[in-house]
Amino acid sequence: MHSPGSEVIGFIGLGQMGFSMAKHLHAKSSAPFVIHDMNRQIMERFQAECGTDVDVATSPAELASRASVIVTALPESAHVKEVYLGERGIIKGVRQGALCIDSSTIDTSVSVDVSSQIIAAGARAVDAPISGGIMGAKAASLTFMVGSQTDSDYERARTHLQQMGKNVVHCGDLGTGQAAKLCNNLLLAISMIGTAEAMNLGMRLGLDPKVLASIVNTSSGRCWSSDTANPVPNVISAAPSSSDYAGGFKSRLMLKDLGLASTAAKDSKTPLMLGALAENIYRHLASDSAMADKDFSVVYQWLSAAGTTRKD
Amino acid sequence: MHSPGSEVIGFIGLGQMGFSMAKHLHAKSSAPFVIHDMNRQIMERFQAECGTDVDVATSPAELASRASVIVTALPESAHVKEVYLGERGIIKGVRQGALCIDSSTIDTSVSVDVSSQIIAAGARAVDAPISGGIMGAKAASLTFMVGSQTDSDYERARTHLQQMGKNVVHCGDLGTGQAAKLCNNLLLAISMIGTAEAMNLGMRLGLDPKVLASIVNTSSGRCWSSDTANPVPNVISAAPSSSDYAGGFKSRLMLKDLGLASTAAKDSKTPLMLGALAENIYRHLASDSAMADKDFSVVYQWLSAAGTTRKD
Amino acid sequence: MHSPGSEVIGFIGLGQMGFSMAKHLHAKSSAPFVIHDMNRQIMERFQAECGTDVDVATSPAELASRASVIVTALPESAHVKEVYLGERGIIKGVRQGALCIDSSTIDTSVSVDVSSQIIAAGARAVDAPISGGIMGAKAASLTFMVGSQTDSDYERARTHLQQMGKNVVHCGDLGTGQAAKLCNNLLLAISMIGTAEAMNLGMRLGLDPKVLASIVNTSSGRCWSSDTANPVPNVISAAPSSSDYAGGFKSRLMLKDLGLASTAAKDSKTPLMLGALAENIYRHLASDSAMADKDFSVVYQWLSAAGTTRKD
Amino acid sequence: MHSPGSEVIGFIGLGQMGFSMAKHLHAKSSAPFVIHDMNRQIMERFQAECGTDVDVATSPAELASRASVIVTALPESAHVKEVYLGERGIIKGVRQGALCIDSSTIDTSVSVDVSSQIIAAGARAVDAPISGGIMGAKAASLTFMVGSQTDSDYERARTHLQQMGKNVVHCGDLGTGQAAKLCNNLLLAISMIGTAEAMNLGMRLGLDPKVLASIVNTSSGRCWSSDTANPVPNVISAAPSSSDYAGGFKSRLMLKDLGLASTAAKDSKTPLMLGALAENIYRHLASDSAMADKDFSVVYQWLSAAGTTRKD
Repeated sequence: MHSPGSEVIGFIGLGQMGFSMAKHLHAKSSAPFVIHDMNRQIMERFQAECGTDVDVATSPAELASRASVIVTALPESAHVKEVYLGERGIIKGVRQGALCIDSSTIDTSVSVDVSSQIIAAGARAVDAPISGGIMGAKAASLTFMVGSQTDSDYERARTHLQQMGKNVVHCGDLGTGQAAKLCNNLLLAISMIGTAEAMNLGMRLGLDPKVLASIVNTSSGRCWSSDTANPVPNVISAAPSSSDYAGGFKSRLMLKDLGLASTAAKDSKTPLMLGALAENIYRHLASDSAMADKDFSVVYQWLSAAGTTRKD
Repeated sequence: MHSPGSEVIGFIGLGQMGFSMAKHLHAKSSAPFVIHDMNRQIMERFQAECGTDVDVATSPAELASRASVIVTALPESAHVKEVYLGERGIIKGVRQGALCIDSSTIDTSVSVDVSSQIIAAGARAVDAPISGGIMGAKAASLTFMVGSQTDSDYERARTHLQQMGKNVVHCGDLGTGQAAKLCNNLLLAISMIGTAEAMNLGMRLGLDPKVLASIVNTSSGRCWSSDTANPVPNVISAAPSSSDYAGGFKSRLMLKDLGLASTAAKDSKTPLMLGALAENIYRHLASDSAMADKDFSVVYQWLSAAGTTRKD
Repeated sequence: MHSPGSEVIGFIGLGQMGFSMAKHLHAKSSAPFVIHDMNRQIMERFQAECGTDVDVATSPAELASRASVIVTALPESAHVKEVYLGERGIIKGVRQGALCIDSSTIDTSVSVDVSSQIIAAGARAVDAPISGGIMGAKAASLTFMVGSQTDSDYERARTHLQQMGKNVVHCGDLGTGQAAKLCNNLLLAISMIGTAEAMNLGMRLGLDPKVLASIVNTSSGRCWSSDTANPVPNVISAAPSSSDYAGGFKSRLMLKDLGLASTAAKDSKTPLMLGALAENIYRHLASDSAMADKDFSVVYQWLSAAGTTRKD
Repeated sequence: MHSPGSEVIGFIGLGQMGFSMAKHLHAKSSAPFVIHDMNRQIMERFQAECGTDVDVATSPAELASRASVIVTALPESAHVKEVYLGERGIIKGVRQGALCIDSSTIDTSVSVDVSSQIIAAGARAVDAPISGGIMGAKAASLTFMVGSQTDSDYERARTHLQQMGKNVVHCGDLGTGQAAKLCNNLLLAISMIGTAEAMNLGMRLGLDPKVLASIVNTSSGRCWSSDTANPVPNVISAAPSSSDYAGGFKSRLMLKDLGLASTAAKDSKTPLMLGALAENIYRHLASDSAMADKDFSVVYQWLSAAGTTRKD
């Protein structure tokens, strides 16, 4: 019934991530394709790059009235609420049985609430936040973490998500996609700061950073932050730290995800000892405009600046 | 000049680690072998197990007067100071050119100070702390992190250390072996608490712990604490958490290493944000006698107990 | 025009705080008085204690249609939103020019939003959260921290608030009453944990707690948590700690206020280093049902339990 | 026997604190007076200011051979060890029954150890660290916290200490003077950072800092750091913050005291959650040469810089 061949695909949110994702989805699918973005120029650019068979909708509601599968890629909770539940939102036009796939990273509770309202309106909804960044979106190598009410919702979503990424993981019920994403990034932030602290201490104690990293990476301290994205410049040449912390995952985006984690922790009465401190360290450093837009491994620079000018 | 064939080997400290290490070293070496421990019975047991060609010395000084290579394996800084510099310490009998290999994990500054005094007395000294635990000592699969003043000291130490382990890494100057060990364990403690926080949060949000671990372990949150020693019971069957946190690396020993890291950080004026909190979390939980002797991943239990009895 | 003599007073929320506050306001005012609470029995009890001239409203909307001044005393943000903006909320019946005084402690952003909507509907609104607890409510000795759009709103609110308390402070614009309350309680929580840490350390080092408190209280470490509510039992006989942490300000309520502070900090991108840790310490201990309902100075017990059973 | 009239007073350490203290002690006492400092010029200056009846000793040992009461005022543990126990230290010349009063702020364990060795050598010793700073030393308004083995040691010390200060408090056994000092300063640092966080948050939420301070200072958040040394400039005109954080208690000295507290905590296995973080916050900011020598309330500047340049 929901075979890909009979679908009409709608895509809302053609930002840095969404544009590349939508291009892959359009290219790999023969289904009619309709897009929407608040920015008209970006829609025209998409048509210019992908062909005039791509339709443009003037609102989420209008798009929803035409699509059987809708993918959304939006920056924050507020945008998701507006696009789904606003006056001209998806819910005002959504077709019975249509599947809404939200790939935004937002508050878990907002995600569950929005999905539940869509389902109550007679459609289906899953959360499918992304790991992999802009490079992954361009390369169609993203990982999607999917929360769904039923296995069949997941299977139906997977058909489309695999056009845009290489891993699609079923995490559990609604909201668990968001939960998995933010738990991973919580641990990532803690590991990165921990790596920065350990590397900084070792260098102060006379260790060569490459030697220290090689030891840690073959020992119990190893982690992605030490063996792939080591925050000390020139330890790993492909890491953002070796390019003045350009590219990568911006500090202010890590701060956003830590905010989602701490909200989820508050709501579920879960203590986050290191996590709470990690969030506030990123809040401190992200307030420095020179660091906010650099890769989050720049925390090493924030930390190690301490001491370089010390007096005694 | 220092060919293994002409050496006399002394070993001081036949505790849980040292006993197994000394057995391997004795078994794989044809050199005359002399031991010392404060506990006479443990020395008799060693002779009973390894043969009566093993000599017993009544003090570190006496042992030092007979050995050209001395390995020490002691619990804390105070013991190392006493055994090396005490009234009947190694320094009172050490032979010119003898090599002292201290495999204890102790304060970096104490290690450098003791080694420097030994060298000033005409002998050689390296620090060579161990990673791998009691199981590694029994299996001769330990990793040694070596700090030495010269490459030749390192090479000479390596000849003997490789009888007791499978990895011998040259970290740099005196004290860098200690530094590498404590930096690794600092990051390990932070990663473990971070993993416990992320797993606990995810489970509160409805995720199955095995699913969450599988996602994290193929994403940027992966670390040894999540993929090898996951602190949630039954996620990884071989992890201590799946055996009621038995075996593994005891919380009170992790606390000891974090204490060494914080002392080194204080001495070098290095800020440890997450590290300082990690130390005090372990100080809090290690004060519970039921947790102090369990694997340090028991921090998950300490953390997640919060909430199980909550009222509202 | 708004002279007390011409007012009709409405009061919503007859919980532990509200009941005592409403009794004082009714007793000291000759104005007609109408009450509302979700719990019918509590309204009957209020009438039984205060006289049958007290009217009962069946909803916030109905109460609002009759009152020129409305005081609300509610537990959390969600209740305030429902009572003010819900289907049968105040906004559905509020009279032009009526003054709404919300004495609840809630999210600053929710408070500003609710007040703004009430004002947009043609009435007036101020936030006036309370310090002083149940004892203060009974004794009419509360402090009210008032945020208002205009000075005249504040003056009008003060007329009524001073019937229920002894201090009424104008903090600034809408929301600043909430802000002042949560900033005070943030500092209070930090000071209390700090006092617990310092007292615990001093006692471990051999100091008599009374001697230590007397020194701190005449030195730069002095604070309300040390000189009035010292968390160590029997240092100050009137402190909750000397009565097994009964009475006082419950840990779970402190946790609630720290949650409001951290939300405000997140929204305003303000780093809270100690504050974030304080919140999570209370989250950890408040999850223990034996501690959640005890005075928040019980953090001393949580902290000092560490060590009493230590092994080495 | 130890009547002030029969004493010979020795004073070692004529730094910023010691010079003023010694001047008061000399001026108010008719006893013969002998001084020692590593810096000959400072001794000559003391003689120039106080008269040629002041004798100069060439070493602590020589001074000790002549004095019945010795006051020491030294910067750190290492200096105390050297002056008391070194090759030309007090212990080499100390007279039977002489009283040594160490007013330095040092490691509790070092203090107890040094005092115990002096007592074992036949003299008496107390620890008497100071609160009150350079201004207090000049005004003879210091507070001394005294740890002594006996009440009579304390009484004898008090006779002399009250010449240099206005409060002399008996804290308990040897080392408890040090313990009281560091516990007070631990709480002070936590309160100051807490005040900075609360003030910063309140201001971000629209509160006038003077209004917020006035509320906090009459509420449960009040503390010395808010009502006497408020870290926000121009809230309290006499506070260092209102003079660009000049004067007061330098950040790097607060860091030193937090280091003593954390060492004592480690030795006594006492968890310091906020305290550990406070130490590392000061370590981070004190590494900035522009902040290290400013009053420790400059932590407000460190904290609030966050956000001033934020981008979104």
